[in-house]
Amino acid sequence: MSGDQRSRPVDDDGPPGGGDTSGRAPFLPRLYAPGPVAVPPAVLEALARPVVHHRTDDFRARFLRLRAALAEVFEAPGDDVMLLTGSGTTAFEAALIAAVPRGGHVLALRGGKFGDRWAAMARAFGYRVSEHDVPWGRTFDADGLRHRLASVGRPDAVTLVHSETSTGVLHDVAALAEAVRAHAPDALVLVDAVTSLAAAELRPRAWGLDAVVAGSQKGVMLPPGLGFAWLSERAWARGEDAGRRVPAYTLDLHRERPRQRAGDSGTTPATSLVVAADVALGLLLEEGLARRRAALDRRNRALLAAGAALGAEPFAERATPAVAAMTTPDGLAAPAVVRALAARGVRIAGGQDHLAPRLLRPSLLGHGDDHDAVVLAAALEGAWRDLGRAVPHGSAVSAAMAVLGS
Amino acid sequence: MSGDQRSRPVDDDGPPGGGDTSGRAPFLPRLYAPGPVAVPPAVLEALARPVVHHRTDDFRARFLRLRAALAEVFEAPGDDVMLLTGSGTTAFEAALIAAVPRGGHVLALRGGKFGDRWAAMARAFGYRVSEHDVPWGRTFDADGLRHRLASVGRPDAVTLVHSETSTGVLHDVAALAEAVRAHAPDALVLVDAVTSLAAAELRPRAWGLDAVVAGSQKGVMLPPGLGFAWLSERAWARGEDAGRRVPAYTLDLHRERPRQRAGDSGTTPATSLVVAADVALGLLLEEGLARRRAALDRRNRALLAAGAALGAEPFAERATPAVAAMTTPDGLAAPAVVRALAARGVRIAGGQDHLAPRLLRPSLLGHGDDHDAVVLAAALEGAWRDLGRAVPHGSAVSAAMAVLGS
Repeated sequence: MSGDQRSRPVDDDGPPGGGDTSGRAPFLPRLYAPGPVAVPPAVLEALARPVVHHRTDDFRARFLRLRAALAEVFEAPGDDVMLLTGSGTTAFEAALIAAVPRGGHVLALRGGKFGDRWAAMARAFGYRVSEHDVPWGRTFDADGLRHRLASVGRPDAVTLVHSETSTGVLHDVAALAEAVRAHAPDALVLVDAVTSLAAAELRPRAWGLDAVVAGSQKGVMLPPGLGFAWLSERAWARGEDAGRRVPAYTLDLHRERPRQRAGDSGTTPATSLVVAADVALGLLLEEGLARRRAALDRRNRALLAAGAALGAEPFAERATPAVAAMTTPDGLAAPAVVRALAARGVRIAGGQDHLAPRLLRPSLLGHGDDHDAVVLAAALEGAWRDLGRAVPHGSAVSAAMAVLGS
Repeated sequence: MSGDQRSRPVDDDGPPGGGDTSGRAPFLPRLYAPGPVAVPPAVLEALARPVVHHRTDDFRARFLRLRAALAEVFEAPGDDVMLLTGSGTTAFEAALIAAVPRGGHVLALRGGKFGDRWAAMARAFGYRVSEHDVPWGRTFDADGLRHRLASVGRPDAVTLVHSETSTGVLHDVAALAEAVRAHAPDALVLVDAVTSLAAAELRPRAWGLDAVVAGSQKGVMLPPGLGFAWLSERAWARGEDAGRRVPAYTLDLHRERPRQRAGDSGTTPATSLVVAADVALGLLLEEGLARRRAALDRRNRALLAAGAALGAEPFAERATPAVAAMTTPDGLAAPAVVRALAARGVRIAGGQDHLAPRLLRPSLLGHGDDHDAVVLAAALEGAWRDLGRAVPHGSAVSAAMAVLGS
């Protein structure tokens, strides 16, 4: 994490058992959650520029450049990636109702909180929803999906989560999409890539996907406030008849598509975030997607190794590079670890719902370098010691550094 | 406009007839449109702060402070003002579907582009829509509304625009709401206050309104990206039955209400904009709403006087303080004036739709002071001269200064 993230000491509660009164220097804040993430200084600088008007040639040029960059990051150069003001959830909503006619049948794959969300959302919009579940932490396998498809009939759409942030699992979207294509060729494959975009390999065209959505506050290293949605041509066509769609206004992608192609939008976009996105995507493409993904994977493996050295087991059957989900050792409560880390300036995510007692979810998805993995490993060691565990100094850090290879 | 707005020369096309080649110094950019508006330096600084996580005590405290400030600005202290990621249109959409059950009858008052928009939106969501129109630039009168109400039966809701940005008219919401109350007491009164919030007097409770919506990029002086919605208790109650509502997910205010009361939200909010909003609303309340409104009214009257000195007639029957809509003199094309101003660094809005050929819409709704009215008057004079009109130096400026009283 860069220097700009350390502008003031944390004003959180002290750590259990003393905190700053122990004589330790106050810590500076570091954001190591799987979103919102730390963003590059140049992106913060862009946010602070004077507000610009969106109905100007200068803004349209920026908007079109951003669209082109987004299509690169989505690995669908030249395609429309729609920009929405909102979150990744907003983008999923817009894509779902743009592609799946009213009353359609949606098969939702659920293996975590976000899998659950897309099922709940589809129900809220009146779709008929079937589920295919795996326990949180496990991956879906293509055979299981084939069996489920055989039993549910022919769904109009299947919702998948690529990187399930609640469990740290990277699901094999390529294999799952192939299974859908083979057994329900007309079913649209709608993919939540909120934390996988720019973090894990994702090939919408080669894998035959029909919608890919993401949000700004994750792998593309922006503040929250923008959602992105790519649709396949057949998904656009499937939703072409407005009379058969779930009604929408601001989130109507069909209405927006020609406007955004012209660098415009139906309502005022979040101009400051658009300007910052233009900067952020430029930086990302300059670094290169392959290089960036490799770095995130390396850092995430280093975090998992640091956890393992402390007796925290990797939770995910197949780990996403976006978050290092790990289960605390017996007797160590995850919320206490999260608080002890916060007292050391380090903000990570804990577990959600039934995983809250034991799951930790540190993440280096944001702006940072390999040294941030070292910092996080050191902070984990420190938190363990704060909570009364005897941990040799440097044990987690050594494990992390061995993975980093530096 | 403050110094931070003048960071670099404009890179627009030169003015008709020479521009910088005339030997004039290059101009610095100034944003004088009725939204997005120039924002205070402290707000830009807040946007540039390191990204914070929303599931933290610090963020929740900020969010709750912002809610309290918003309720003050909405003149409904202690009430829920819902925060949305999006625009004023997003907020209108959320309020409409939260309050008016599916298939309800909506009477839309249309006297400009935004009046049209709410009618179109209600239709998109399947409501039965009746209209009550006045020509663009004219106000609705309570008698006309009474007659219309007598003919359309009992609508479930009436949509009103307080400050119609496309025409510069401030409609008399108090009188119109009273007419609705008298003749259709069950009809909800839904008010677009996008450019009137913090600019014109607006009393949701005293005037018996049922929804008031606004956006961030106007009178509260933030970048675009947030929408705000206040509902009356009877509007909340009217939409209580989820089964009778138009389906929604991210824009479901009923689902959001208890969360936002706790400083939380269903999906990740635009945290950087929320932090900036906390700063912006603080500044606004420190200045004081009454003082701010008086200043905007004074500056807007000064702009109208400057225009009149140049032969541009006020367009609005009853002027909003948010924008100085004026019609160019015969033979002077408004788009040419907009371009000539742009070449002088000054960005104003022109007319929309059929008003494009003759309407100018300069605005001092954003961060600025009385001197900005002088600058804008000077720029208008200059644009007139650029377009071949013989205008004595200082004629528009003198008229503006006489109104400003300085």
